[in-house]
Amino acid sequence: MSSSRISSVPDSDTSDTVARVGIIGGTGYTGVELLRLLIPRDDIEVVFVSSRGSAGTRLDVHFPSLRGLTELEFEGPEAVAQAACDIVFFATPNGTAMRQAPALLAAGARVIDLSADFRLKDTDVWEHWYGEPHLCPEWVAEAVYGLPEINRESISDARLIACPGCYPTAVQLGFLPLLEAGLVKPDSLIADAKSGVSGAGRGAAVPMLMAEASDNFKAYATAGHRHLPEIEQGLAHMAGGPVDLTFTPHLLPLIRGIHATLYADIQPGVTEVDLQAVFEARYRDERFVDVLPPGSHPETRSVRGANTVRLAVHRPQGRDRIVVLAVEDNLVKGAAGQAVQNMNLLLGLDEAAGLNAPPLSP
Amino acid sequence: MSSSRISSVPDSDTSDTVARVGIIGGTGYTGVELLRLLIPRDDIEVVFVSSRGSAGTRLDVHFPSLRGLTELEFEGPEAVAQAACDIVFFATPNGTAMRQAPALLAAGARVIDLSADFRLKDTDVWEHWYGEPHLCPEWVAEAVYGLPEINRESISDARLIACPGCYPTAVQLGFLPLLEAGLVKPDSLIADAKSGVSGAGRGAAVPMLMAEASDNFKAYATAGHRHLPEIEQGLAHMAGGPVDLTFTPHLLPLIRGIHATLYADIQPGVTEVDLQAVFEARYRDERFVDVLPPGSHPETRSVRGANTVRLAVHRPQGRDRIVVLAVEDNLVKGAAGQAVQNMNLLLGLDEAAGLNAPPLSP
Amino acid sequence: MSSSRISSVPDSDTSDTVARVGIIGGTGYTGVELLRLLIPRDDIEVVFVSSRGSAGTRLDVHFPSLRGLTELEFEGPEAVAQAACDIVFFATPNGTAMRQAPALLAAGARVIDLSADFRLKDTDVWEHWYGEPHLCPEWVAEAVYGLPEINRESISDARLIACPGCYPTAVQLGFLPLLEAGLVKPDSLIADAKSGVSGAGRGAAVPMLMAEASDNFKAYATAGHRHLPEIEQGLAHMAGGPVDLTFTPHLLPLIRGIHATLYADIQPGVTEVDLQAVFEARYRDERFVDVLPPGSHPETRSVRGANTVRLAVHRPQGRDRIVVLAVEDNLVKGAAGQAVQNMNLLLGLDEAAGLNAPPLSP
Amino acid sequence: MSSSRISSVPDSDTSDTVARVGIIGGTGYTGVELLRLLIPRDDIEVVFVSSRGSAGTRLDVHFPSLRGLTELEFEGPEAVAQAACDIVFFATPNGTAMRQAPALLAAGARVIDLSADFRLKDTDVWEHWYGEPHLCPEWVAEAVYGLPEINRESISDARLIACPGCYPTAVQLGFLPLLEAGLVKPDSLIADAKSGVSGAGRGAAVPMLMAEASDNFKAYATAGHRHLPEIEQGLAHMAGGPVDLTFTPHLLPLIRGIHATLYADIQPGVTEVDLQAVFEARYRDERFVDVLPPGSHPETRSVRGANTVRLAVHRPQGRDRIVVLAVEDNLVKGAAGQAVQNMNLLLGLDEAAGLNAPPLSP
Repeated sequence: MSSSRISSVPDSDTSDTVARVGIIGGTGYTGVELLRLLIPRDDIEVVFVSSRGSAGTRLDVHFPSLRGLTELEFEGPEAVAQAACDIVFFATPNGTAMRQAPALLAAGARVIDLSADFRLKDTDVWEHWYGEPHLCPEWVAEAVYGLPEINRESISDARLIACPGCYPTAVQLGFLPLLEAGLVKPDSLIADAKSGVSGAGRGAAVPMLMAEASDNFKAYATAGHRHLPEIEQGLAHMAGGPVDLTFTPHLLPLIRGIHATLYADIQPGVTEVDLQAVFEARYRDERFVDVLPPGSHPETRSVRGANTVRLAVHRPQGRDRIVVLAVEDNLVKGAAGQAVQNMNLLLGLDEAAGLNAPPLSP
Repeated sequence: MSSSRISSVPDSDTSDTVARVGIIGGTGYTGVELLRLLIPRDDIEVVFVSSRGSAGTRLDVHFPSLRGLTELEFEGPEAVAQAACDIVFFATPNGTAMRQAPALLAAGARVIDLSADFRLKDTDVWEHWYGEPHLCPEWVAEAVYGLPEINRESISDARLIACPGCYPTAVQLGFLPLLEAGLVKPDSLIADAKSGVSGAGRGAAVPMLMAEASDNFKAYATAGHRHLPEIEQGLAHMAGGPVDLTFTPHLLPLIRGIHATLYADIQPGVTEVDLQAVFEARYRDERFVDVLPPGSHPETRSVRGANTVRLAVHRPQGRDRIVVLAVEDNLVKGAAGQAVQNMNLLLGLDEAAGLNAPPLSP
Repeated sequence: MSSSRISSVPDSDTSDTVARVGIIGGTGYTGVELLRLLIPRDDIEVVFVSSRGSAGTRLDVHFPSLRGLTELEFEGPEAVAQAACDIVFFATPNGTAMRQAPALLAAGARVIDLSADFRLKDTDVWEHWYGEPHLCPEWVAEAVYGLPEINRESISDARLIACPGCYPTAVQLGFLPLLEAGLVKPDSLIADAKSGVSGAGRGAAVPMLMAEASDNFKAYATAGHRHLPEIEQGLAHMAGGPVDLTFTPHLLPLIRGIHATLYADIQPGVTEVDLQAVFEARYRDERFVDVLPPGSHPETRSVRGANTVRLAVHRPQGRDRIVVLAVEDNLVKGAAGQAVQNMNLLLGLDEAAGLNAPPLSP
Repeated sequence: MSSSRISSVPDSDTSDTVARVGIIGGTGYTGVELLRLLIPRDDIEVVFVSSRGSAGTRLDVHFPSLRGLTELEFEGPEAVAQAACDIVFFATPNGTAMRQAPALLAAGARVIDLSADFRLKDTDVWEHWYGEPHLCPEWVAEAVYGLPEINRESISDARLIACPGCYPTAVQLGFLPLLEAGLVKPDSLIADAKSGVSGAGRGAAVPMLMAEASDNFKAYATAGHRHLPEIEQGLAHMAGGPVDLTFTPHLLPLIRGIHATLYADIQPGVTEVDLQAVFEARYRDERFVDVLPPGSHPETRSVRGANTVRLAVHRPQGRDRIVVLAVEDNLVKGAAGQAVQNMNLLLGLDEAAGLNAPPLSP
């Protein structure tokens, strides 16, 4: 295969319009998804990808899907200081960004953290769920929660973005129109959520072996999942007061995709509301939220590889409980795609730049 | 392969202890599963299997998995009259058993219907959901709902068994201890249920193609599924009054297995109850209901091929909403295995006869 | 979701640089894959998509993955005459293109046929395998076999392209360097090929149900597959004489992907040849054929959604039999992507236009 | 669930007819499969299951599928000495049995080794492929290769059984009738073999994660797989002289099942032979080898959970190359089921005891 498909270094006369981006932690599924979305772009140059374990290895040795598309090698994380990045993504395990991001921020880079380090505003809650002291609470206070459908204005001016988790994105966007409009009882919320196995990351673990996880289905973490406080924080913000959410995650025998089935009891006195109209109005100007026609059932495959959340709202039997169905690709709108959407906002680009490819279906 | 593994016709001196059974509609997944469970038994002889479309074809041509195990051919459904069966199973689409069962019952056979024809006691409700008049309401009145964990005594004496649907079995057994004990609000019930594709049967249909249904997940029939009135009928019986259930079925990308995630709000005043003890007490003597230890998450594969329902009860965060997790193999405890369990009761055999093989895992 | 992601009709002042393309038969997997590849392009306008059964339905009702990307409706096939297309794709069952293409060709359109109608130069052979008389042998003679790695020059000037089948693409590109260089015995060829289920198309059929085809593997058509004469025709052309190929297709339990494992006996006297160098030299300038390093094993997922064929050549144990491993996405390089590659050549565009997106992995 | 399904300790008056068996290494897939096959039996008592890492844990904690079926705990491997087993199975990684079996043999137990330690008669070859010196070549000489279809007589009298590997079973049984009858050229043999992921065992490894191995297909170990010398040893024995086999294993995206596609060139002068008759005659008395009718294609699911190998023989296009298709469940006939078949022979029981359950299909 000829190397002609590999983007050359941009000519000097255009380099001022090409943003330089770096990725800390490039060997996981979020990392390779960022590369998939960023490498083809003309307005972005990936100048740095780190991996503690794979430094010195070409990216395309680690990820054969990238052969012919990049000649980069993984570097050690310390080398980022020399890379002069405009934007640095953290696609690292929890606990890394809070250690390394402050220095990069101080040096003028803008940081998009895909881990959980800056998502919870209450650091006591963070420390309870993540099991260690938070090392930079001052940056927690400044960090902007990177859900553009809620925080678009703040994101554009941010220095540090806390990119939402995969479950929280689907659950929050599903409940948003109902809570903002005060249509449901805030203590009646249930999120029965199902995620594909890529959400568990690329670490070797027996329960994630194909012989264990395929042809199988189960719930997990019913007693409490780290995404629960993140979701409740967001929902409370929407509701303007405390909410009570029961959150049950499940493991789906597929690679990509989250399906959240959301339940809420309708508020007395608002039973005549046109739920479909409420959802359509709320998301009319959102390019990555698609409200399906009445009676629809979104499928995870309809967003495979795309940054779109598709929603449907139901009121079964005309009773007083609302059911919202939400699907997303956990690696795209649930992780790397949302991070790119945030990056576009930070850089003043078209919010959808590089995110317009149709889903891969079937 | 030698034919020595094929059971010979029983000797005359033992034939009075071998029950003769027939299967109407043997070409679907429920039919072949009945054959899998019945053919190896010494105390049962399958003497008749019908198929309108495959009459004259050997069973093992249709189902290569049965090669070496049976030499039977499919017959036309009319031939059952000559087969002198003690037990006749209907593994047919809805609407067939109500046409053919009365004559068999009149001739003295006992009938186990795996379709929906005799499950709903209110024939108006039946006619609403199944779209045609019911042809033998008198048999509906006599039919016994074949969930042994509730109706064991009645089953033993029945002439006609209405075998529960796959979803209703998992959902009812999951809610049973809570409703019988009056621990939850009967209008707060939610069943978020997920089924493998074999539940949709063996008919050719585009949405069930592997290229459509695998690597995918979606809800369906949110507006109303035929199993909803069946489940509500059963739950109301347990609760001693009306219940309100939101039932959302989903399609899992696996072949066998149902997972029901059940939600209910705890009744005020009973918040100190030991839920684990309630479940264990209710099912202590049940051989096919397994209550997992506290904190467990049952997996569908742990019951693959077996007649067992496994349950776990949770009270996340110590809040006022209970979560019950239930798994079953939809073709076994959700269909053919439960039918065999009923047959064992009808025949006065050990209830677990032929149902003791361990699940196939992995 | 706002409609701003839908491409507007190009302004009049640029319309002369935008090619108008039509798709006959747009409801199958090949059709939706063409749409996935063509809709995002600025230099192509899809002006017409036909479906006999779905005329009048919006494309995005049929394919929810296209929501927000197109407002087109399916039309009846007869309407193509008014559409003034520069290029017409046939994504139809065998037998349709030979009936409809001649009129379009006469009207000046260029036709890319993804079916088998024009692949076999010997119409007697065609009639033997496809079971009906060929209706336009004169167009068979003119048609160019659309494998750019062999026929690039002829393709550029063609009016009618016979796009290769999915198996033939992988098998021919795998054997090509060996046969062109005369390194193997032409009567020793074996292609043990495995295809994902999307290769069987979108028709409802019991063997393609997920409950039948998943968690399963089998060979099929061992006695003779329609792709055998197509492959042998191509291999004979490369070898400069007759070849003898044993071709065994198998059905993989995955959606997209073909893996061909190819065997050939090395010619006496050429045992010292550097096979790796032969393959690399042959494909050095090919942008869609990737020769992996020595010792590699290409994976189907490494080309998921991409137009690339990846190859590895082995000589196990240093013995006299060569093993070539080839993977492709059967819907892309095996169908729609190759068709687009041909279209680019016909239109004088960059051969890789619209085909540069990285594979979707994991 | 009541404990009544757990087999009680046999009464003393029958204990002399119940064989005591132990399993060394019970936490892998082969171990749990042995337990699935042995626990339900009345004539066998599993008295001992060891695990170095899980000693003290109940089996059903490790394998929830066994809940209600056994109350055993894993023990340390040293405890086997006290267990007074008639039969000891080694379901351990390679290299363990050769260390521990001799002492057990000396104490009078009979040993069935499911690992590779005693399969290769030439210990130099063994040491080349397994990378360490063999510690008990004298036992290699005595060990009987446990393929009953070839060695039934020797097995019955053996003290030490070397159970064949999963690939070798399918490949040898597929080639056996051809080689014994001298019908094919012994240097023309190719085995293109595909295995489900359970064949890789239960160790945590990134390439076996569901996110890596599902929706994917690839060859591996083309340069040389440890099963190659084992297969060639067996084929040479059948052929009465050296053979040359090209063996290409592939990883299937399913849990259980091996499909071997075998190729061989027919000997000149025997082209008129009735291959179907040759296969049927060879396996007429074999209870676990099923020769399908002419033109058939065996499916892996048709043997899921069963000890059967199904074969079909083809001669495509009437040319001079034979294609044999063979399927087995790699965990049953390819491992635990074959071990039980050997055990039955060692104990003088019906060879098929405990192995008659129909396959699980769908």
